[in-house]
Amino acid sequence: MKIVIDAMGGDFAPLAPVKGALLAREKYPDVELVLVGREDAILDALRETGKTALPDGITVRNANEVVEIADDPATAFKRKPDSSLTVGLNMVKNGEADGFVSAGSTGALLAGATLVVKRIRGLRRAALAPTIPTATGRAVLLDCGANAECTVEYLLQFAYLGSYYASKVLGVAKPRVGLLNIGAEEEKGDALRRETNAKLREAHKRGDLNFVGNVEAKEALLGQCDVIVADGFSGNVMLKSVEGAGKLMGGMLKGMLMKNAGTKAAALLLKGGLRDFKKTLDPNEVGGTALLGISKPVVKAHGSSNDMAFCNAVRQAAEVARSGIADDIARDIDKMRLDRTGNAG
Amino acid sequence: MKIVIDAMGGDFAPLAPVKGALLAREKYPDVELVLVGREDAILDALRETGKTALPDGITVRNANEVVEIADDPATAFKRKPDSSLTVGLNMVKNGEADGFVSAGSTGALLAGATLVVKRIRGLRRAALAPTIPTATGRAVLLDCGANAECTVEYLLQFAYLGSYYASKVLGVAKPRVGLLNIGAEEEKGDALRRETNAKLREAHKRGDLNFVGNVEAKEALLGQCDVIVADGFSGNVMLKSVEGAGKLMGGMLKGMLMKNAGTKAAALLLKGGLRDFKKTLDPNEVGGTALLGISKPVVKAHGSSNDMAFCNAVRQAAEVARSGIADDIARDIDKMRLDRTGNAG
Repeated sequence: MKIVIDAMGGDFAPLAPVKGALLAREKYPDVELVLVGREDAILDALRETGKTALPDGITVRNANEVVEIADDPATAFKRKPDSSLTVGLNMVKNGEADGFVSAGSTGALLAGATLVVKRIRGLRRAALAPTIPTATGRAVLLDCGANAECTVEYLLQFAYLGSYYASKVLGVAKPRVGLLNIGAEEEKGDALRRETNAKLREAHKRGDLNFVGNVEAKEALLGQCDVIVADGFSGNVMLKSVEGAGKLMGGMLKGMLMKNAGTKAAALLLKGGLRDFKKTLDPNEVGGTALLGISKPVVKAHGSSNDMAFCNAVRQAAEVARSGIADDIARDIDKMRLDRTGNAG
Repeated sequence: MKIVIDAMGGDFAPLAPVKGALLAREKYPDVELVLVGREDAILDALRETGKTALPDGITVRNANEVVEIADDPATAFKRKPDSSLTVGLNMVKNGEADGFVSAGSTGALLAGATLVVKRIRGLRRAALAPTIPTATGRAVLLDCGANAECTVEYLLQFAYLGSYYASKVLGVAKPRVGLLNIGAEEEKGDALRRETNAKLREAHKRGDLNFVGNVEAKEALLGQCDVIVADGFSGNVMLKSVEGAGKLMGGMLKGMLMKNAGTKAAALLLKGGLRDFKKTLDPNEVGGTALLGISKPVVKAHGSSNDMAFCNAVRQAAEVARSGIADDIARDIDKMRLDRTGNAG
């Protein structure tokens, strides 16, 4: 198993990706790593960690260009063929590695992955599929921003992608698939939701999906399903709302604990619990956001990823590679397609 | 000032509305109240509170029918002309009262308010406009579910409605209006967002609105704007995500505090802070959700409203009535209309 890490992507590159690679190599000895990017910058970062040489199982692939925020995301991978993004994705495409991890621009990664590594044949769109905390565990939320406008077929395909991911990567037996909506009843929401609900019910009847119906954002967060199917606009709104509410409440909690000597004493008593609390909501702990629908594993790590986040993203990419979900999806693709009359398969 | 309370609406009706009326009458002596619903049930509830007669300034208007969950929301007000909903809305329409508060079915209230009390002339749609907590105070989020599918004109009108509400009812000087989107840049999101962004920028240039641009849900929750403009689908997803995340984190916090003797001691030290924390996130504290765009104040109280929630919703309806925003909107309606070529005015 070999995973490529984009050493130039993210707020703390190249130091965080390099440290993440070292950590992942220690924690997951069966995973080899390739750091792709400017070799001199990578080696400088390595020296900063106190090491003079890369350990066995980590190599560097030089790439002289860097995709910047100012670059047009749709064309960056093409205009900068010697960027860490493009070189890394090509390694995965050519079978030199099994997966790619980057904390760089989401848009550039999405366009690059789609056009270099390519989607699984028959899938209309790739989806950003982060996992979010719920009251009973975690749920995959997709799409989360790759596709602002969606069709019934896209949503149907996201349901399958999420279901495969939850069962094969997250280890959930018979994942409960919910359609994000503004009410639980079948007729709720807009035309897109009503038609998608009907298609998902058909898939459920055929035994292809475990569809539990429409879910509201609140109930989804309380653990009503394992896969939350959404268009990229409302999925992104949900994800960012949860992040924002977490930050808002975290700030309030901090203010409450730092108020006076008594509350500071309470904070000391709660130390372990507060750490767990923070951990549950920390995106660094999860790893990254899987790009589902691409024929090889591509994981977007958070822009502010630290070494632990890169290490977790590497684990995630390796798990996706091992799970073989791309093959499963390719095999079952006919179930996920709507012909011109709107019927599956 | 006279506000009508639907005594039959909500999970704890008629007791909670009756207790809410008593509380509001005490707290806001300049507001008279009418409890509309089954007189015998209202008087039974009154006796349950230990009182034998209604205090001065609270009266009962009998209505024999009750709108139930099973009733079709769109037609309930018509099919049940002697329901507390229909009788109460007609009192407001006829000028017998200045505003209406109900914790009953949102859909039935929305349809009834639109068709009995009527929208302000020229407004395309009414919007559900709750206020949500942010890191720096509160923001109005509209629409939140009344209109799953929206046009550019609807969103433009929501921006004005929210801006008037924030300035005249919430007392925010020059409210910052943001368009809920999946990125801050002008070209982000779908066609609806791009066109609406352009119209809002024009309104800003004319000095009609203080438009601060696209906002992501996270930044909105951190206090980037006072008015969050959204289609009813994504607005509802945001609202319910915040509620769900609050519940999720509240549960985690509770688990953390109840873990052992040490954490229980900490909980005691934090008592006051925890109460404030809970209060900030408690919808009962805010009152209800204003139905903006209706020609008279209509407030939807939370289904699980307690007496305090009803009391706050009464205060809110009275504030909307006093603010005169319906007149302001009627006066400025030409700014909020798009002609067939898509130009304002």
